[in-house]
Amino acid sequence: MISEFYKDMTGKTSVIRDFFDYSMKRAAELGPDSVFNFSIGNPSVPAPAEFTEAMENLLKNSDPVALHGYSPTLGLMSFRETVAESLNKRFGMNYTSAHIFPTTGAAGALAHAIRCVAGEGDEIITFAPYFPEYIPYVTGCGPELKIVPADTDSFQINFEKFTEMMNEKVMAVLLNSPNNPSGIVYTTETVKKLADILREKEKEYGHEIFLISDEPYREIVFEGTDSPYITSFYDNSISCYSFSKSLSIPGERLGYVAVNPKAKDAEYIVPMCGQISRFTGHNCPPSIIMLATKEVLDLTSDLSIYETNAKLLYSALTDIGYSCVKPGGTFYMFPKSPVPDANLFCWTAAKELGLIIVPGDSFECPGHFRISYCVPTKQIEKAIPLFEKMYKRFA
Amino acid sequence: MISEFYKDMTGKTSVIRDFFDYSMKRAAELGPDSVFNFSIGNPSVPAPAEFTEAMENLLKNSDPVALHGYSPTLGLMSFRETVAESLNKRFGMNYTSAHIFPTTGAAGALAHAIRCVAGEGDEIITFAPYFPEYIPYVTGCGPELKIVPADTDSFQINFEKFTEMMNEKVMAVLLNSPNNPSGIVYTTETVKKLADILREKEKEYGHEIFLISDEPYREIVFEGTDSPYITSFYDNSISCYSFSKSLSIPGERLGYVAVNPKAKDAEYIVPMCGQISRFTGHNCPPSIIMLATKEVLDLTSDLSIYETNAKLLYSALTDIGYSCVKPGGTFYMFPKSPVPDANLFCWTAAKELGLIIVPGDSFECPGHFRISYCVPTKQIEKAIPLFEKMYKRFA
Repeated sequence: MISEFYKDMTGKTSVIRDFFDYSMKRAAELGPDSVFNFSIGNPSVPAPAEFTEAMENLLKNSDPVALHGYSPTLGLMSFRETVAESLNKRFGMNYTSAHIFPTTGAAGALAHAIRCVAGEGDEIITFAPYFPEYIPYVTGCGPELKIVPADTDSFQINFEKFTEMMNEKVMAVLLNSPNNPSGIVYTTETVKKLADILREKEKEYGHEIFLISDEPYREIVFEGTDSPYITSFYDNSISCYSFSKSLSIPGERLGYVAVNPKAKDAEYIVPMCGQISRFTGHNCPPSIIMLATKEVLDLTSDLSIYETNAKLLYSALTDIGYSCVKPGGTFYMFPKSPVPDANLFCWTAAKELGLIIVPGDSFECPGHFRISYCVPTKQIEKAIPLFEKMYKRFA
Repeated sequence: MISEFYKDMTGKTSVIRDFFDYSMKRAAELGPDSVFNFSIGNPSVPAPAEFTEAMENLLKNSDPVALHGYSPTLGLMSFRETVAESLNKRFGMNYTSAHIFPTTGAAGALAHAIRCVAGEGDEIITFAPYFPEYIPYVTGCGPELKIVPADTDSFQINFEKFTEMMNEKVMAVLLNSPNNPSGIVYTTETVKKLADILREKEKEYGHEIFLISDEPYREIVFEGTDSPYITSFYDNSISCYSFSKSLSIPGERLGYVAVNPKAKDAEYIVPMCGQISRFTGHNCPPSIIMLATKEVLDLTSDLSIYETNAKLLYSALTDIGYSCVKPGGTFYMFPKSPVPDANLFCWTAAKELGLIIVPGDSFECPGHFRISYCVPTKQIEKAIPLFEKMYKRFA
């Protein structure tokens, strides 16, 4: 008999998906110009030319048997070494290859990191607004995910609620900065305060509490924004990275787990990831993508359009009258809905104007909506009058 | 605290790994000519030139944003459609894209298929000799794996033991043909008999029993061997495939689940796989590999060397005096050890002669050893006198 658990799940769709599907349907019916799609986070700029060249060189100049052969269980050593060196140079860390485990994107990295440090009966805490896929990543391996309510004034951490929610069952804290959906970057002050609390609670509870830092937007930070390397402030920590956004290769599925060398049992965590991947049938990311990425590790796509779009959109929205915390990075913005029911606001925008934005409810932050502005700047310019219409209608 | 379960596991190494590591150490100390490595199943022939060309064309002629963009949750539709068409043409099936779910290799396919049809408290039955990675794939999502002892005369199915072991808890039967490690292909007679028993037991127990067919060696079948398309004989069935061996691209991690359109709840299984991948952080296989493979779907590498090697080695070993069931496919052979303790036999061969073969114990078939002959034919020729020495020493 097929699994009732997964079967039931196929009937439930996500709100983001519903809006995206509506935008596709509308575009098919009324033409693509009838839709202003700000619902999904697919990078809009090409991969660096050097990435394409690296791929072409590998195909042209390598022995295909070696090029496409199995990777070792823990991934290609040359990739792991290059990642460690790059992180050390950029962030003053002391990683070696033994701390780096290549994964299929940040999703794979998170699924591995969580399984390393928590299981059935444990709790993992994260902070609203948060990426809703954390629910399957966490609950899929046993622990319960607890959500600290948002500090909607700043989208930094709501420390009062956080300390109230801490308890002995909490084995890990999972955070995402630069943040999807708020676009906010946690400040050095925020990260230090969090680290202090965690160290104190570790002593109080007598066990480690791991900090799992989800960092796919690390390279998309705007000028003047304080953007600390989070895991450098706390020893028992694991970074989860993806090249999806920095190199614009989300479909090629490459990321990594980077274990803080000072973490308790640091030397076990990467070999444990190797074991975990056997259980999930996950195994290594694709060889050729690891090899090509290794060649362009310190490059990124031209990410400047995201900052251009952020400035333009933020300034227009606040001029119109929207209340919005200014984003420090990513390609998301998370304004307050002019009416408390952000679902009503977003569906009205979609159906009347073809303006596709996503209500904050599924990010555990109702009354707000997410704009994904990884789109051509022209689309932003065209959409501004629509945001104005929506504001006037509801405010 | 880190997970004790996975931490403990890092201390346990696999026997195959131990032999492989020994071969690397010996090659480093005594030179590569001192080692005849028959321990692992990495294809030794290059990917077809058409695969490389397809990759190059995609890099040269596609919009990189689309090429490297996110795939839909269920995989690229064009890949799914092409796989369905190809299977229909080759095997007279009626697949549509709705029955095909792309995965990262056969490992990913098995992990998904198993989660679809079994969970905690259930049993899955497989047949010795079997691929030991089935243990984590199965136990990782809850069910218990039960192993039917080998029929060492033919390496077909030991039906007497199988029917003894069947019970109400069995939700799936997992089989691998052409088989690693025996090289044997299950005959039409074997598959029909198995299907008859399963249908009978489904009636008796009042629930479906799924047949999960692990088929990464489907394209490597030698002349004159009866090689049925297994799932065509039984409705409640799922094929798990990988392009690792047929296209010699094991590092690029591409395979698929193909759900028999006649299976109970067939329409749910692929969407369920999409849900399962969220829980394991698995997501889609790499886009560019799906797109390139779609272009060469009915091609294979030049696999003829495996048959050449099989003939040469089988004839030499049986001439020497070894007892061996003749392989019908794959690049494995599984002779009887001339001494009951195959571990002793294999370690002696490794340490005295640098002949690296793997004892059958971890395939749940002691007293045998596996030879992976995906090597240049010259290496087989050079190794034959060593096999002879070993036989004389122990027989």
